[in-house]
Amino acid sequence: MKTTKYLLNEKDMPRNWYNIMADMPNPPEAVLHPGTKKPVTPEDLSPIFPMSLIEQEVTSQRFIPIPDEVMDVYSLWRPAPLYRAHQLEKAIKTNSKIYYKYEGVSPAGSHKPNTAVPQAYYNKKDGFTKLTTETGAGQWGSALSFAGNYFGLHVKVYMVKISYEQKPYRRSMIETWGGEVYPSPTDKTESGRAVLAKDPNSIGSLGIAISEAVEEAAQNKDTNYSLGSVLNHVLLHQTIIGEEAILQMKMAGDDPDIIIGCHGGGSNFAGLAFPYLREKFAGKNYRLIAVEPKACPTLTRGKYEYDFGDVAGLTPLIKMYTLGHDFMPPGIHAGGLRYHGASPLTSQMLKEGYIEAQSYEQGEVFQSALVFARSEGILPAPESNHAIHAAVVEARKADQEGKSKTILFNLSGHGHVDMAAYTSFLSGKMADSALPESVLEEGFASIPKI
Amino acid sequence: MKTTKYLLNEKDMPRNWYNIMADMPNPPEAVLHPGTKKPVTPEDLSPIFPMSLIEQEVTSQRFIPIPDEVMDVYSLWRPAPLYRAHQLEKAIKTNSKIYYKYEGVSPAGSHKPNTAVPQAYYNKKDGFTKLTTETGAGQWGSALSFAGNYFGLHVKVYMVKISYEQKPYRRSMIETWGGEVYPSPTDKTESGRAVLAKDPNSIGSLGIAISEAVEEAAQNKDTNYSLGSVLNHVLLHQTIIGEEAILQMKMAGDDPDIIIGCHGGGSNFAGLAFPYLREKFAGKNYRLIAVEPKACPTLTRGKYEYDFGDVAGLTPLIKMYTLGHDFMPPGIHAGGLRYHGASPLTSQMLKEGYIEAQSYEQGEVFQSALVFARSEGILPAPESNHAIHAAVVEARKADQEGKSKTILFNLSGHGHVDMAAYTSFLSGKMADSALPESVLEEGFASIPKI
Repeated sequence: MKTTKYLLNEKDMPRNWYNIMADMPNPPEAVLHPGTKKPVTPEDLSPIFPMSLIEQEVTSQRFIPIPDEVMDVYSLWRPAPLYRAHQLEKAIKTNSKIYYKYEGVSPAGSHKPNTAVPQAYYNKKDGFTKLTTETGAGQWGSALSFAGNYFGLHVKVYMVKISYEQKPYRRSMIETWGGEVYPSPTDKTESGRAVLAKDPNSIGSLGIAISEAVEEAAQNKDTNYSLGSVLNHVLLHQTIIGEEAILQMKMAGDDPDIIIGCHGGGSNFAGLAFPYLREKFAGKNYRLIAVEPKACPTLTRGKYEYDFGDVAGLTPLIKMYTLGHDFMPPGIHAGGLRYHGASPLTSQMLKEGYIEAQSYEQGEVFQSALVFARSEGILPAPESNHAIHAAVVEARKADQEGKSKTILFNLSGHGHVDMAAYTSFLSGKMADSALPESVLEEGFASIPKI
Repeated sequence: MKTTKYLLNEKDMPRNWYNIMADMPNPPEAVLHPGTKKPVTPEDLSPIFPMSLIEQEVTSQRFIPIPDEVMDVYSLWRPAPLYRAHQLEKAIKTNSKIYYKYEGVSPAGSHKPNTAVPQAYYNKKDGFTKLTTETGAGQWGSALSFAGNYFGLHVKVYMVKISYEQKPYRRSMIETWGGEVYPSPTDKTESGRAVLAKDPNSIGSLGIAISEAVEEAAQNKDTNYSLGSVLNHVLLHQTIIGEEAILQMKMAGDDPDIIIGCHGGGSNFAGLAFPYLREKFAGKNYRLIAVEPKACPTLTRGKYEYDFGDVAGLTPLIKMYTLGHDFMPPGIHAGGLRYHGASPLTSQMLKEGYIEAQSYEQGEVFQSALVFARSEGILPAPESNHAIHAAVVEARKADQEGKSKTILFNLSGHGHVDMAAYTSFLSGKMADSALPESVLEEGFASIPKI
C-alpha cells in the first residue's frame, strides 16, 4: 500500500484557461442560425447568453485570464489532486504506470462547478439576475445551483421528469443550494405544454428540458440560459483540469503517453485533453482517447454533420458527431453520457485525427470500476468509470505487446450519489445495453440536410 | 466572496496521535468486567481485540507514532483542509471569526476512516483476517469496509435492519468496497435468534447489532470486533484532526476561544478537542463544547454511572454519561448521534468541568445548516449540522455581548448520502423530536446498580 498524491501549492495554480481555437490547425467550423442557415452572430446569441461568454465562445485569444472572483470560489476545492494509481497497477498486474486527476473533491462532487462558477460570475457581471438550465441526472443542475447561489443569481432547473422522480438526492442538492427545480415537461413553457398536449405522461428528455430552459431565457430580459457542456466556452473553463495536470505530471517527473477522459458532451474530456493537445500541435506525441458508452456511441458510430443540440430543433445548428437529435439512448446509469451529439471542438479534433474514440458496454465498465474502488479506495461516478475502463484496457494492451505506457485519466466525479448503479451491478442486474441498429437508423433520419 | 483555506504540506503532517490519558488531572475510571465487576484485564479483551489496540486502550504514553502504513492510506485524503468561514460570518452578520476543519474529504465522506484504517492495520499486523462490526446509518460500516479492503481483511457488517432497508446507498458502499452486510437481527447469531424469537419483525437497534458482531468475533479465533467510537483507542486515532488543526490555526495566525464538535459516541468531538485540551491542562483558556441532539441528550440529561455499551449487556461496564442502555431515541436524521452512552474519556472531561455540553432540536440545527450550505457552499452531514448550529449560537451570543470570539468547529462529514434529510427539512416535514420525560425515565431504569 502506497499513496502518491501530487498537489500544487495554491500560489502555483494556473491563472489562465486555455483556448484551443487559437492553435487548431484548421479554423473551427461555423455554428449556423437554425432559420437562416448562416453563421450565427453575437447578436443572435445575446438573448440567452451574456456578451462576456459570447466573446469567449468565438475568441482566438490563446489564454484567457481567470477572474479573481472565480479563483476565489475555485480555491474552495482546487487545486485538485493528481494520484499515481499504484494499487490499481498492482491489482491488474500491469507494467504500465497509471495516474489520475480527481475532480470529485468539489462541493458538488464532480468537475461541473469548474464552468458553473465562471458562467454564474459573468452573467452577474453583465447584469443578469436569473439563470435557467436543464439537467438529466442532476449533476449539472446541482453544480449551477451551487454556483448561482455564490453570486446571488436565481437558478431555475428543468430536470428530466424521470430523473426528478428517480434521483431525489440530486434534486434535493439543487434546492438546498437555493435553486428551483421542476420536472420537465412542465406547463410553464410553450415547449413543455406542446409535449404534454401530445403525451400527458411524458417522462421527459434532455432535449425537451433544453427547449424549456432556452424558451424561458429568451423571453425574459433579466434571464439567461446556461449549458453544462458542448459549447466552446464551457470546454474552455474546464481546461483548468489539464493545466493543473500538466504541472502535476511535472512534479511526478513523468509525461503521459496516453490521456483519457469519458465523453458525453465533451467538457471533462476536453478539460484534461486540450492543454495536452496544445503540446501535441507543437510536436509532442500524445494519444488522446475519448470514451463513451456503447449505448450512446456518438463519436464511434455517429455522423459528422450539422445537427441541432436539442430535440425540438430550437438551438443553432452545430457541426458535430451526432446520432441524430431524435436519438433516444437506453437508460444506462451514466446519465451524463446520454447525449446524441458532441461538442463541435472535440468532434473536429476527432475528424482531423488528433484524438481517438472508444466505446464500451456498461457491464465491463463497472467491472473495472469495482477493481478501481477496491484498489484505490475512491468510489467513482458511473460516467468516470468509462475512463477507468479504457485506462485498464490500454494498460493490458501494452502488457500484451511487452511495453510499458504512462497513462493519465480524468476521474471526473465521485459516485456517492450514484450508489444505486453499484447495487445493480453487484446484484448481477446490470444489463448490457445492446443497441438495435434500427435505433441508430431512426436517429440518423432526423439529421437535417442543409 | 473570498475563500481562505489552510492546507498543510504533506511533509508537515503530524506524525503522532495524542493520548489524553497521559495528561488527565485524574486517572481514567476503570472499565469493569460485566461478570466479576472488577477492572477488565487485557486478557479479558483479547478474544475480540488485537493486543496492539488493547495496549493503546490503556497506555499512558503521551504521543503514539502513526505507523507508516497508516500514514500512506491517510495521505489519500489528508492533510484535510481548514477554512475560515468568511461567507457564513457575513450571512449571520457576526463580528466573531469562524473557522472549520473539514473531514468530508475522505473516500467515505466522513472522519470515520481516521480510525478504521489503523484498526484494520493493527488487526492485520497482529495476525487476524476478519473483522465484524455494527453500523446504524452506515457511515462506520462503510468506513471499515473501505479500510479492511486496503489491508486484505474480510469485513462483516451487522447493519440495523431499518437502516439496511432505508439507506441502500451506504449498504452499497459497504459492498462495493468488498464488505459483507446483513440486516440485524439475523439468524446467524444466538443474540440475533433470541431477538427474532421474541419479535420476528424486529427493526433492529444498534445495541442488538453490537451484540451480534461481538458474539461472532468472540467465537472465532481469526476474527476480531471493531468499534467506530466510544473506546479510548478510537478517540486516540481521531486526534489527527486536532493535531492538524492546531498547526493550521497557527498558519492562520489565530487561536480559537471556542472549540466545537458534535457528539454521538464522542470520537469526532474528541478528535478535534483533545489536542486543545492538552494545552488547556497546561493553562490555556479554551472553551470546548460537545453538541448533541435534544432527541438523544446523553451528556446534557444523562447520568454519570457505570452502564453497558449495548442493549443486551454483553460489553464491559463503562463509567459514562448514559441515558440507560435500554433508551431508544427517536429516529432523527443524525443517525450517528443516536447512542445512549458516551465515551468514558469525554464523559470524565465533562464531569470534571474541562468541557461543556449543549443540545439542540433538529429543526433549528438544519436551519443553521441551510445557512451554511448557502454561504460556504459545502453540504454538511446531519451530524455535523449540530456543530454548525452551536457555532452560530455562540457567535450570536458574542455579538449580543458586544464581543468578538474566534470559533473553530469540526465539519465531520459531507451530506451527499443524506440528502433525504434536507428534502424533509425543505418541505417543512422535519419534526422536532420532543422527548417525553417517560422515555428518559424508562432508560434510566436500565442502568445497573453496582
